[in-house]
Amino acid sequence: MGERFTVVYSITAATEAEARARAEDICVEQTVEFPPDLIPPGPIRDEVVGRIESLRSLGANRAEAAVSFAVATAGGELTQLLNVIFGNISLKPGLRVERLDLPPSLLAGFKGPRFGGAGLRALLGGPRRPLLCTALKPMGLSAAELAELAYRFALGGIDLIKDDHGLADQSYAPFDERVGRCAEAVARANRETGFRCLYLPNVGAPAHQLLERARLVRERGGGGLLVAPGLVGWDATRLLAEDDGIGLPVMCHPALLGSFVTSPDSGVSHSVLFGQLPRLAGADTSVYPNWGGRFSFSRDECLSIADGARVRMGSLRPLMPAPGGGMTLDRIPEMLDAYGNDVVFLIGGALYGRGPDLVATCRHFREMVDA
Amino acid sequence: MGERFTVVYSITAATEAEARARAEDICVEQTVEFPPDLIPPGPIRDEVVGRIESLRSLGANRAEAAVSFAVATAGGELTQLLNVIFGNISLKPGLRVERLDLPPSLLAGFKGPRFGGAGLRALLGGPRRPLLCTALKPMGLSAAELAELAYRFALGGIDLIKDDHGLADQSYAPFDERVGRCAEAVARANRETGFRCLYLPNVGAPAHQLLERARLVRERGGGGLLVAPGLVGWDATRLLAEDDGIGLPVMCHPALLGSFVTSPDSGVSHSVLFGQLPRLAGADTSVYPNWGGRFSFSRDECLSIADGARVRMGSLRPLMPAPGGGMTLDRIPEMLDAYGNDVVFLIGGALYGRGPDLVATCRHFREMVDA
Repeated sequence: MGERFTVVYSITAATEAEARARAEDICVEQTVEFPPDLIPPGPIRDEVVGRIESLRSLGANRAEAAVSFAVATAGGELTQLLNVIFGNISLKPGLRVERLDLPPSLLAGFKGPRFGGAGLRALLGGPRRPLLCTALKPMGLSAAELAELAYRFALGGIDLIKDDHGLADQSYAPFDERVGRCAEAVARANRETGFRCLYLPNVGAPAHQLLERARLVRERGGGGLLVAPGLVGWDATRLLAEDDGIGLPVMCHPALLGSFVTSPDSGVSHSVLFGQLPRLAGADTSVYPNWGGRFSFSRDECLSIADGARVRMGSLRPLMPAPGGGMTLDRIPEMLDAYGNDVVFLIGGALYGRGPDLVATCRHFREMVDA
Repeated sequence: MGERFTVVYSITAATEAEARARAEDICVEQTVEFPPDLIPPGPIRDEVVGRIESLRSLGANRAEAAVSFAVATAGGELTQLLNVIFGNISLKPGLRVERLDLPPSLLAGFKGPRFGGAGLRALLGGPRRPLLCTALKPMGLSAAELAELAYRFALGGIDLIKDDHGLADQSYAPFDERVGRCAEAVARANRETGFRCLYLPNVGAPAHQLLERARLVRERGGGGLLVAPGLVGWDATRLLAEDDGIGLPVMCHPALLGSFVTSPDSGVSHSVLFGQLPRLAGADTSVYPNWGGRFSFSRDECLSIADGARVRMGSLRPLMPAPGGGMTLDRIPEMLDAYGNDVVFLIGGALYGRGPDLVATCRHFREMVDA
């Protein structure tokens, strides 16, 4: 009997019988997609079809089923693993992926985060405090203007300077020129400060240019990659993270992924979408909108992401959560209290809004976190 | 002033003022993602920020806004176009992409469907009836067993035989062996029947093997590609469709895309998700679950996909909708009535369930459609 992995689903169902029927439907829909009574006895029925490992009520109209699948059904590929976890049933409302429990034989096919939170700290010279992150924006500035911003952020002590996720290869600030200028500006600031600030360009490239563009980041002296799996694909994200010719930390961005968490009853849990899946894809840190900003995630949902970022997944390193989405400096004490030190504070617009002296603003940001 | 494209969003809002505020938020969030009062007067404010072109009430708590964006914001890339259309706001419930209106200057960057519905018909020898499609399954069969099924389907007169979308490169039926055997079986049947049945293997490969695997389909005599944009990415789908070294028709599969249409108020409309976007990505036909099958799409939602499949998009060819997901032979008259002849009837499990003589079942299927 081959090894199996387990997906915990929550299920909308009025009765236990309905919950069981829906769990049985998951077992079939996600594997053989075949009339159950036509499946002959033997290995397909015994091994390939999903298996309900447990089923329990979560109260009114909601149940939780742990369904196991043969590791062989995923064929060693992230694309197909995602397909087994949620491919067809993404089309069926009232089913939600809550947790993934993947055995070592499956996880062995994934390198996971190359650096993880601890490795990121090491790259930055070993600070024990939360890491400071901001974004280069707005879209429409020239590469030279963005580089000047990058210089001032780095001079002020920001650890991770990422492109805004909307900076691609537009005529405003073409990718190659932007990466070169911003990386140079950050290196110049680092020479002045002694800090080790990293610049993370956004590599949302067409599929056939993605690897090339990411390698260019390395060549131009970039310090990491910003990648949106919703735009480029989860497996393309994995490819960029695992490629030894790049070898840079990867920061995941949630663009186009929001629909998976729009409904509390359907889709994928915050913990899986922004914690477990980015780790499978090799991300070292994962951006998501914190509670109380411009977006609507709850405190519990955000803290569940921090759980998914460090829950045991074989030997995969934990990643560092990066809550953002409208955070301000006055939120720091609350976020420190909630997340502890293993967190990236991503503050974008609010740094720009605090007066013209960006360097002073960043120093203030750093002092608040150091304190 | 540069050319602009327009996205029509529906918006949940209690008042007109709230609807306008949410539309203004879209304009900013999807472009500069920057405090509006900090944007200096000039081209960024005038051109880069989105612009509300119209706003109207849709009745209680719902409004519709047409928002235009500079073509330059998309930078000529599908990934970034998707990002501008719905990247960050996918994380904000109550916003839904309803329609895309893309000008020729933007569409010029996309080849669109290489064949489209009319081209598919031509490849098949020019039938004017709906096209017949089925799937090789269940997962767990060997390549030889799947090839035997393919032979019988082709002998019975099926036009398009696709892999089940769960067939990847598992040990049960490895990709290379499966494609070779099934393509050979279909070619053998075609020699006997004089038909031009096409075999479409599923190319849900890891990112670095995708192009290679698709080219292998061509080398092995496959007749098209089954591609799930939700698994491999929209732009990877485009790459496979546009690559002249492959040059095969592409059938889109909806795996992992369901969460975009789970909520009627959030996400992306059926028409865009299964009609307009697949066309941008170059798909010639697009699979989705028809009403009244195993899934929950309504009749109106399904017919809106057929609209998106043929709505004017510059010179992009129309694609052919492929409703499936639990269809049975007795549904054919109803589907003919609703869709007319420009449709692919995808019937999977129900063909297997109609008795052991698959060839006779397929002939019956074809006679029903011919009649």
